[in-house]
Amino acid sequence: MQSIIGYYTTKFGELWDKSLFDLVEEAIFGALKNAGIGKERIDAIFFGNMMAGVLENNLHSPSKIAEIIGGHIPVFRAEAACASGGMAFHLASQYLAAKAGKTVLVLGAEKMTDYAPEETVTALTAASSGEEQEAGLTFPGLYAMMAQAYFARYGATKKDLAHVSYKNHYHGTLNAHAHFRRKVTVEEVLKSAPVAYPFGVLDCSPITDGAAAVVLTEDKALLKKCPHAVSVLSTAVATDSISLKGRRDLTGIEATQIAAQKAFKGAGLKPEDIRVAEVHDCFTIAEIFAMEDLGFWKKGEGGRRASSLETLLGSGSSLTVNTSGGLKAAGHPVGATGIKQVGELYLQLTGQAGPRQVKGARYGLAHNVGGSGGSAIVSIFGK
Amino acid sequence: MQSIIGYYTTKFGELWDKSLFDLVEEAIFGALKNAGIGKERIDAIFFGNMMAGVLENNLHSPSKIAEIIGGHIPVFRAEAACASGGMAFHLASQYLAAKAGKTVLVLGAEKMTDYAPEETVTALTAASSGEEQEAGLTFPGLYAMMAQAYFARYGATKKDLAHVSYKNHYHGTLNAHAHFRRKVTVEEVLKSAPVAYPFGVLDCSPITDGAAAVVLTEDKALLKKCPHAVSVLSTAVATDSISLKGRRDLTGIEATQIAAQKAFKGAGLKPEDIRVAEVHDCFTIAEIFAMEDLGFWKKGEGGRRASSLETLLGSGSSLTVNTSGGLKAAGHPVGATGIKQVGELYLQLTGQAGPRQVKGARYGLAHNVGGSGGSAIVSIFGK
Repeated sequence: MQSIIGYYTTKFGELWDKSLFDLVEEAIFGALKNAGIGKERIDAIFFGNMMAGVLENNLHSPSKIAEIIGGHIPVFRAEAACASGGMAFHLASQYLAAKAGKTVLVLGAEKMTDYAPEETVTALTAASSGEEQEAGLTFPGLYAMMAQAYFARYGATKKDLAHVSYKNHYHGTLNAHAHFRRKVTVEEVLKSAPVAYPFGVLDCSPITDGAAAVVLTEDKALLKKCPHAVSVLSTAVATDSISLKGRRDLTGIEATQIAAQKAFKGAGLKPEDIRVAEVHDCFTIAEIFAMEDLGFWKKGEGGRRASSLETLLGSGSSLTVNTSGGLKAAGHPVGATGIKQVGELYLQLTGQAGPRQVKGARYGLAHNVGGSGGSAIVSIFGK
Repeated sequence: MQSIIGYYTTKFGELWDKSLFDLVEEAIFGALKNAGIGKERIDAIFFGNMMAGVLENNLHSPSKIAEIIGGHIPVFRAEAACASGGMAFHLASQYLAAKAGKTVLVLGAEKMTDYAPEETVTALTAASSGEEQEAGLTFPGLYAMMAQAYFARYGATKKDLAHVSYKNHYHGTLNAHAHFRRKVTVEEVLKSAPVAYPFGVLDCSPITDGAAAVVLTEDKALLKKCPHAVSVLSTAVATDSISLKGRRDLTGIEATQIAAQKAFKGAGLKPEDIRVAEVHDCFTIAEIFAMEDLGFWKKGEGGRRASSLETLLGSGSSLTVNTSGGLKAAGHPVGATGIKQVGELYLQLTGQAGPRQVKGARYGLAHNVGGSGGSAIVSIFGK
């Protein structure tokens, strides 16, 4: 059985005094310290990053990371747009399952705020198809079209979406590492500056810098010494057409559905067993899609259930979602997001989540999506 | 035991009528046809690519590949500069070892010639450190400094290097897919236009488009049906500081030495068991480094032994190197190179190498390097 035995996240936000590899270094040594081990215990590193090549002509990160940590261990970079962190985690888990090593560090980082906004937005469109880029579609535009398709079929409203933002901003106030730590009201979300109908700016996750790392082991001797550990019960990946026009349905993300089915089967669990989940809320509609596609809610009831705020911390329901603040309030440093999700579940399942602790959670689920749904990773954890 | 059961490579060269994903599509379906299987037999795809993000704002290739092949299978992109293909192969092998699937396709591709040369050269520098980029060092410059350090210590000459180019260009004439298919004389190499001392242009691998794919399986039932198969005996990765200033020694590549030791140990073989090898000759000096670092030649004797042409096809010696033409003559579409190396060994060990067939080879070795030596992969195959 593989276990997470340490986690570190930098502050998420506009970190203008730190470079990408400053953040990487902080996360690597922070996670090692949290796990209580030296770097010599690490057999390989997996790194999730999307945009360093495009934004700062910075590739070949395996050897940049070797320079930071010293020595000659294998380092692998995974890239799958906003799912880069999740993909890195998935590959790291396979690496351990292959007995290629006993303990690995999984890292995600992104530096997004040092550039003119249009540069970063253009770089983000690299996660969509060439045709979509040429049509001038940015990610708010792509998800806005999906939201409108959902509204048209199921009758959800802009106000339903606003409740997702309200909830995740509230959770963000409880997370010292979150990019945004202020509450927003449903009315503020509804009145926020339009981006792409039905989204206002408060329906959208921000441009964020940050890095996060977890230590993953199947070394039983090491595990015995660790005060806090969480088991990886399953991790599953699925893909889909990168272009919206190639999808069977725009009112959900099929890659999430397929990955979730595999992950639940692998863990031997059902959606109702999960008490805490971090899902990919890059836009408010995306959390509604996630809740339905993961099997927590039935298709079409997401608007109503989002408005009920049943997944808000302290609501008394059986499932709390995005206690970190989600992508919306904790921020979305693309490559780091998938790792921060795993780390948040580690905190929750080991009782280290402080003011945002969900009580009595035995199982947690992380859900990371690339682009407009062209790739998805679902991983399930247990204590 | 994992086996390669199919291989396809596109023509390598200046392929102005084909896009990156045209090449990807051709390689995927070519490899499936060569293996005699349908796409439904593939459980995952691993993709090596370096520069599509920087050159054409094209990331999230897992879902682009899903669009090409159809369906929802896991697709992973690995990036480690010029070692991207080898890293993809290594991860694919771990994926099978983890029992995450039975049969995978490993693919590498790069589209490099559609841009102004300075754009492509700048994108290539992304594989070096930020300081090296700021100093104006390109890869010919970095390897030229290493060559000069080697010359100073061991007394090798520009003429020794020229023999590497002569040999690999001769091999290229025997490979219908090679970028360059003409012989060059040692004198032509010596007189070729200076690039960075001691390199003339004929000491340097070219800017090339191309894609290559292999099918890797551990499905015994499938293997029985395949007329041609080669076993993967071991595959090992090592890293080093990305900056030359962080290296212990500039007269070789320590990452290669470490990966080679691991790979030989894993395969239970010694360098003298290898009869055919594809090594990373991005510059002529790099083949000399490779021969020494892999343990084929003693440190310092590389100049003399390169000049002896003992690794030329038909020389009668026990080891033939870079029968494909190497990076020098077959071309260097960065992400594809590591896969083409594996594919060339598949052809050689199954007796399908035609006019460049090495006789009686039982074991082969592939060696792929990232940047100036910040990462290296060594894989050993047997028939």
